[in-house]
Parts: sequence; structure tokens; C-alpha cells
Amino acid sequence: MTQQRRADGSLRHLLTLGELTRAEIESLLERAQHFSRPPGAPPARSDALAGITVANMFTEPSTRTRVSFELAARRLGADVTNLEVMLSSRVKGESMLDTIFTLESLHVDVFVLRDAEIGVPATVAANVAPHVSVLSAGEAHVAHPTQGLLDALTVLQQKGRCDGLSMAVVGDIRHSRVARSAYHAFRALGVTDLRIVAPPGMMPDDTEFGGCPRETDIVRGIDGCDVVMMLRIQKERFADADIPAGDDYFREYGLTTARLAKAKPDAIVMHPQPMNRGVEIESAVADGPQSVIRQQVANGVAVRMAVLETLAAPLAARRH
Amino acid sequence: MTQQRRADGSLRHLLTLGELTRAEIESLLERAQHFSRPPGAPPARSDALAGITVANMFTEPSTRTRVSFELAARRLGADVTNLEVMLSSRVKGESMLDTIFTLESLHVDVFVLRDAEIGVPATVAANVAPHVSVLSAGEAHVAHPTQGLLDALTVLQQKGRCDGLSMAVVGDIRHSRVARSAYHAFRALGVTDLRIVAPPGMMPDDTEFGGCPRETDIVRGIDGCDVVMMLRIQKERFADADIPAGDDYFREYGLTTARLAKAKPDAIVMHPQPMNRGVEIESAVADGPQSVIRQQVANGVAVRMAVLETLAAPLAARRH
Amino acid sequence: MTQQRRADGSLRHLLTLGELTRAEIESLLERAQHFSRPPGAPPARSDALAGITVANMFTEPSTRTRVSFELAARRLGADVTNLEVMLSSRVKGESMLDTIFTLESLHVDVFVLRDAEIGVPATVAANVAPHVSVLSAGEAHVAHPTQGLLDALTVLQQKGRCDGLSMAVVGDIRHSRVARSAYHAFRALGVTDLRIVAPPGMMPDDTEFGGCPRETDIVRGIDGCDVVMMLRIQKERFADADIPAGDDYFREYGLTTARLAKAKPDAIVMHPQPMNRGVEIESAVADGPQSVIRQQVANGVAVRMAVLETLAAPLAARRH
Repeated sequence: MTQQRRADGSLRHLLTLGELTRAEIESLLERAQHFSRPPGAPPARSDALAGITVANMFTEPSTRTRVSFELAARRLGADVTNLEVMLSSRVKGESMLDTIFTLESLHVDVFVLRDAEIGVPATVAANVAPHVSVLSAGEAHVAHPTQGLLDALTVLQQKGRCDGLSMAVVGDIRHSRVARSAYHAFRALGVTDLRIVAPPGMMPDDTEFGGCPRETDIVRGIDGCDVVMMLRIQKERFADADIPAGDDYFREYGLTTARLAKAKPDAIVMHPQPMNRGVEIESAVADGPQSVIRQQVANGVAVRMAVLETLAAPLAARRH
Repeated sequence: MTQQRRADGSLRHLLTLGELTRAEIESLLERAQHFSRPPGAPPARSDALAGITVANMFTEPSTRTRVSFELAARRLGADVTNLEVMLSSRVKGESMLDTIFTLESLHVDVFVLRDAEIGVPATVAANVAPHVSVLSAGEAHVAHPTQGLLDALTVLQQKGRCDGLSMAVVGDIRHSRVARSAYHAFRALGVTDLRIVAPPGMMPDDTEFGGCPRETDIVRGIDGCDVVMMLRIQKERFADADIPAGDDYFREYGLTTARLAKAKPDAIVMHPQPMNRGVEIESAVADGPQSVIRQQVANGVAVRMAVLETLAAPLAARRH
Repeated sequence: MTQQRRADGSLRHLLTLGELTRAEIESLLERAQHFSRPPGAPPARSDALAGITVANMFTEPSTRTRVSFELAARRLGADVTNLEVMLSSRVKGESMLDTIFTLESLHVDVFVLRDAEIGVPATVAANVAPHVSVLSAGEAHVAHPTQGLLDALTVLQQKGRCDGLSMAVVGDIRHSRVARSAYHAFRALGVTDLRIVAPPGMMPDDTEFGGCPRETDIVRGIDGCDVVMMLRIQKERFADADIPAGDDYFREYGLTTARLAKAKPDAIVMHPQPMNRGVEIESAVADGPQSVIRQQVANGVAVRMAVLETLAAPLAARRH
């Protein structure tokens, strides 16, 4: 419960939004808003993390998110090194913690971790030295906290609030860390009508997503919603889960202009990217006037700056 | 025609030299000369691009050119991030433009693109926001504009002019972006005797390289030339094109000391690198007194600094 | 003999410790101690290498060492570019020296090289321009000079001296560059009882490790030692060398708490990492009170800063 916080209650790691209070989430979003800039404007910069070394450790080919974290850290003045370290270490059989301890000995202060295996960020967080912070950049199907925050920031910028909104998350909820972090963020921020919409084989267990109405029909699922959040479908899951494949999926679950008309007229459409156009979302919707997908990406840098600053500021302050 | 320029006529993108005026090319070369430094001297530096973010996106394994662009951008004070993004995005099926839009949302201001597919740089240039610039670092067999510029700068430094020079480009002209950008640069700069020398199967279509004498015999091709530009041969093309392979190619088209004697006594030898020594060029020539191959590489950084500065200076100026 | 030094006797390249005098090694270690910081403290920084460009060229998947060199160079103010260049150049058949000359033309001042092939660093060092330095980051089984230095620094910090110590190096001595550089460092620093302990198939030729007692039994090998240095075992070598595999190796050569008790009570345990826990070393030992393995890593950055500064300082001074 408190493993993400220091003794004084301040946030030391960010592995999941599940343990954060509404006030903590709002505080991070407020700081992210401070770092937010319109498209084309110069990005926000500060030297809050000057002297701090950030290791960006990604094992999946997710260049987009890696660059987002890299630029966020650099724009705060941190020294950033990119590693596909688990991968190369596994080649030699080095255990994960030895790699972490090695980097810690090289004076890495913040680990940004993306790993396909459950529990990696928590294991690292539990083992690093007291001055070191861990930030999850995506953990299996479990959590993707900065994605949850950037989704929340996007909704707040568009709608001015979360309280009382109706929202539908559509797609492979069962395997989605994006859905789980959205659930944590939006429930904390007061979204009461948070519907999960999925084919039966992609529904999560009953023990998860408590309080969320479940719907297998997309049209009923998004009916009257303020926010429609589409998830990326992993095509390789079609076979596993007795799911309609390719064209069939689009016919049954793709977000089209026609279906979107069932949501509120001013509903916004979100997607964590990368999109499978023509599978889970029609291009006309992805690029249409209700889409806020690019705004989500831009908010990604702002949110990551806010989180990095929040986690490492105490250390940076001690060093200045 | 004008898609590379802004409304005020200034250069916004650089995808091909084919549309540039002689004055524009000369202006870029003059600026490149300003950034040129002798071997061993400290490289030129400026803060012209401070606050600008450059994404270096390479899909082919061309480390040499990637480093050249990376160092050029950094020595201008830009923030640079390297991506093999097309590759990793293709793994997940993300479309190219979604990747570009994502990076644009991360406040990337300049895209340096190398892609094997025709049309990628133009498609990107046509779709990015107005403040964003695109610089091609090599497009299929079509264009490699900074290579054309660095070749021109090298000739100017060596010969003092291009007007009236005799020049031979030797090798697989048909598949060479280097040859096409050289053609654009040197024709604009007044080389009238620009010969293309290739085996029949590696000759371009008649519709291309207008005004260039064609020659299938290397000795006749380089006879009396001021400049001999050798191209890299792609060994995998030997089979396709009914071309003499390996040793045969060297025997028929390799640049040897004996053959080079047919050019002017002060002729210079160029090669875009990497070289297949013993295939298209003899080591004695590559490393000999007439070779300016290393000077070409050094000019690469200077030219890339000049182009990056030219493209992004208006944006940087607005931000300072 | 003198190929690592300039005409004035100063160190220009570092390829092997074998040619260094005790005074030179001590001077490097003293400088490394100057850059050494306790865990959690901010790392040492200087601008000694401002304006210097370092190319970090690694062909093996050794992220840990690459990051160590990268951070060391950056914390000295150098501009660093990372390349897996040999690899990508080989794809196109570019010869190694052409790659080096290309990078030299891009104003790379220091090459940090790791290559599996013997002789690569020396060949590069023999061919680069006079102002350029080469630093080996590991050469085949031959040399890993910064590892030897960091091992020596660790022993000095722990024991206050090397003279008169008893030391055992245990494992695949035959194939180990770590063992060879340790041999050079510790012999120069006055360790007289430097034992090499290995299964018969992993013993080096008789012509090597002159003056070192040889022992095939680990318990007799470490008996009464001040320092036990374990080597990483390459599992793929078990078959080659008629070596007991896996569990058998651990049973016969693994460093256990029980075996360690045969060394002096205050003996320290070293390992170059990455470790095969349960193969050459028991976890209880690796993480136990006598282990100084993390201190070795931390010393790696300090040593690399000292070496980079020493090699490139004359050039940086000329440029300032």
C-alpha cells in the first residue's frame, strides 16, 4: 500500500495509480498542466532534474513511449541513458536485479521500466537504494500509470471535469494495462459511469473493474457517453480467445462514424496508440473532429515531466 | 515544385535538390563552408538550434550517416533523439504517419528520415504541421540531397568551381540515389560534361539524366575527366541485372591506378562510402593522393549543419 | 611497447595494462579515486572534456559496460555517440578502418572499442590521426584494461595496499580478458602471491601468467587469500573443454560460503559481472558481507573518467 511513498508520505515510485488518492492524482495533473504546451509552441523546459541520471529501460519495441520519457527527462535537465538492457542481459543470463544494482552503482537515480513480465517494477522498487525512484512505463497487462494520467489530463482539458461523466472503454479489456490504469485514474477522479465494453473472450475476470457496467455490444456500450476510449487490439489474441478476427472484429467492434453518433454529440474519442486503423477504429473517426488522440500524446510528455519531477525533486533538491 | 519552400520562398524541407536554384544551392554550400573545419581541428559549434528537437529516423543500417546527422544537429545545440522507429512500429503495424504525428506531438521540430521506400519523405512533408521541417537522409534510389551537396562542396574546395568541369559518375547509376542527387547538384552548378558510366544493365532509363553522355566502357568514360565519382555496387544486384559478378566486375569496371591515369593528372576521386574495396575501387586508388573520400565525409557534417540551420532557423528565431 | 604513448611519454591510447609502469597505474588509480563517490552521492562531474567527441563502439551485447563508458564520458562534459557500428557496417561489407576513418572525419576524438576479434584496438590505434585516442573496452580474451584498473582500485580501497597480498583468480582463466588485465594490474602493484585456479581445460598455456601458482582445486586455491576474484563462466564453453557442466561446475568450482571460509576471515570477494548465480558463485556469497562486487561497478565509472581524462586532456587543453 505505502510502498510507492516515502516515510513523509511523498511519492517515491510510481508503479500503479491504484494506491493514489484523488488529491495526489490531481496534484500530478495540475503539475502536468503546468508543463503542457500547445502544438508548435516550444516545449516546457526546466532544470529541476539537473544532476539527476535517468535510465530508460525498455524491453518491448515501443519507441514512441521511450522517446516520450526520454524527451521529458531531458527537458527537465536530467542526464538520460537508453537501454534495451534486459534483453541484452538475458542473452548472457544476467539476473534482472544484478543489472539494476549495476546501474545503481553507476549513479542512476531514476529507473523508467517497461517490461512484459508482471511484478518487475515492484521487485525493482523494493530493492533499490533509498534515494532511487522507479517509474513504470508499462507493466504487462497490469498497469501503465503515466498513460492513465495522460488520459485523465486529456479528459479534464476537454471536459473541464471528470465528475459525473459517462465513459466507455472498448476493446481487449482483459489484456489491457491501459484500461486498468484508466480505471484507477477515472474512478479516483469521480467518473461513476465507467463502462467496459468487450467481446466475451476479452472481458476481465469478475473480480476486476468493480463498479463498472459490462457490455458486449459496442453500440449499447457507448450510448450517450461523454468519452469513448478505444483500446489497441493485439491481432495475435484473436485466435486465443475465440474472437472474431480482422474484418469481423471491425464489423462487430470497430468504432465507426455511424456508431460514434450513438455517443453524445460532443463526445471525445481517445486511443492510446498505436492504432490498427480499420480494425478497432475507422480512420475517419481517428482523424475526425471528435478525436483527441494527438492531444493524448502531447499530454504524455507533460505528464511524464510532472511525474519525473515529483519523484526525483527531493533528491535533486538535496543535491543542489 | 514549391512543396519544399515556405510561402516567403525560404527552404522549409529538403527532399531533393532537383527543385533548387543554383543560388539556393550555392547559398547552402557557402554556409557549409562556414561550418567546415580541417581534420583534427575542433568541429564548428553554434547554438542556432537551441530549443529545437530533431528526430533522427533511420530504417536502414546506416550508422555512418546517422552519426553524421546526429553530430551535426547536436553541434548546433539541438536536442536529438535517434529512432529506428519505422522498424519497431512496423512490428506493431502502426502506420508511418501515426508515428510521425506522435513525434510531432512530442514537439519534434525536424524529422531526418531515411527510408527505403519511395515517397516517404514527401508524404511526411505534406502532412506535418507548418512549423515542422523534413530532411531526407536518403530515399530509395531517388534522392540523397545532403550527399549531393557534400559532393559539390568537395569539388568546389578542390577545383574552385564546377563550371566547365568534366565529370564521370561510374557504377550502378540505375539504382543510385547518390548519382541522382549528384546530377541535380552538378548540373545546377554548371558541370556540362557530366558522363554516366555503367554496364548496360545498370544504366538508367532514357528519360533520366537528360543531357548526360552515356558510356559503358569505364576507360572511355573517365577519359580526360576532372572528377571521377565511383558508386558503391550492391553485390546483390549482380544477379538481377545480368552484370559481371565480383572479380569480373572489378576487371571491367573497377577503378584502378592504371585506369585513373586516363583522367586528367589532377583528377580527384570520390566515393560516397562505404566502399567495396577490390570490387568497384582498388585500395591503392581509394587511399591514394587523388582520393578526396575522407574530405567528403568531413563535408557531410558541415553540409548537414548548414541544411539543418537553414531549415529550422526561422522556427528557432521565433522561439528565442 | 610505446605504441600506447605519445612522444612525450604521456598516455595516448589504453589497449592493455601490460605495458604500463607501476607509477602510471598508480597515477590513473589516484585520479580515479578523485572521481570516486559513495553510493547515493551525486556523481563526480567536470568539464575537462568539453568539446571532445567520444564514439562508443560496441559489437557485443554489453549494455552495462557501454553505459559505464557513456556516463563517464558525459560526466566529463564530452559529446558521446553510441554505435553498434561494426555490426551494421559488416552488413554492408564496409571494412573496419573505413568506418573508423569516416568517424574520424566527423571529428570523433576518442574511440571506445569493444570487439570480439583480437587485434582490433591495436589496428585502430595504429591508423588513427595523431590527435585521436583509442580506449579498449574489452578485446577478445586478451585485455580489458579498465576492468583491471577498477579491480585494482577496489582492492586498494578495501585493503589499503596491494603489496604482499594473496589473491586467487578462479574460473575460466584461459578465455578471460578480465584475468589477463587483473594479472597485469596486480603484478605491477606488488601482489606476489597471485594464484590462478581453474579446471585443467580452462588453464592458460604455460607461456602465460608467469610467476602465478596454478591450482585446479578451488579450496586449496583460495586457502588463506586476502582477495578471491571469481570469473564469469561462459556456459557454451563447458562442452568445448571437457568441463563439468552446470550443477557439476558449481559443485566443483562454485564459490560457496563454506569454501570462502578457507580464505582469510577478512577476505573480499570480487566478480566482474554479470554473474551466473548458482554456477560460479553462490548468491549468499555474491550478496554477502565479504562481497565488494557493487563497489567494483561504481569504481568502473570513476576509472573510466580517469582514463578518458588522461587520454584526451592534452587535446582538450589545446582546444580550450
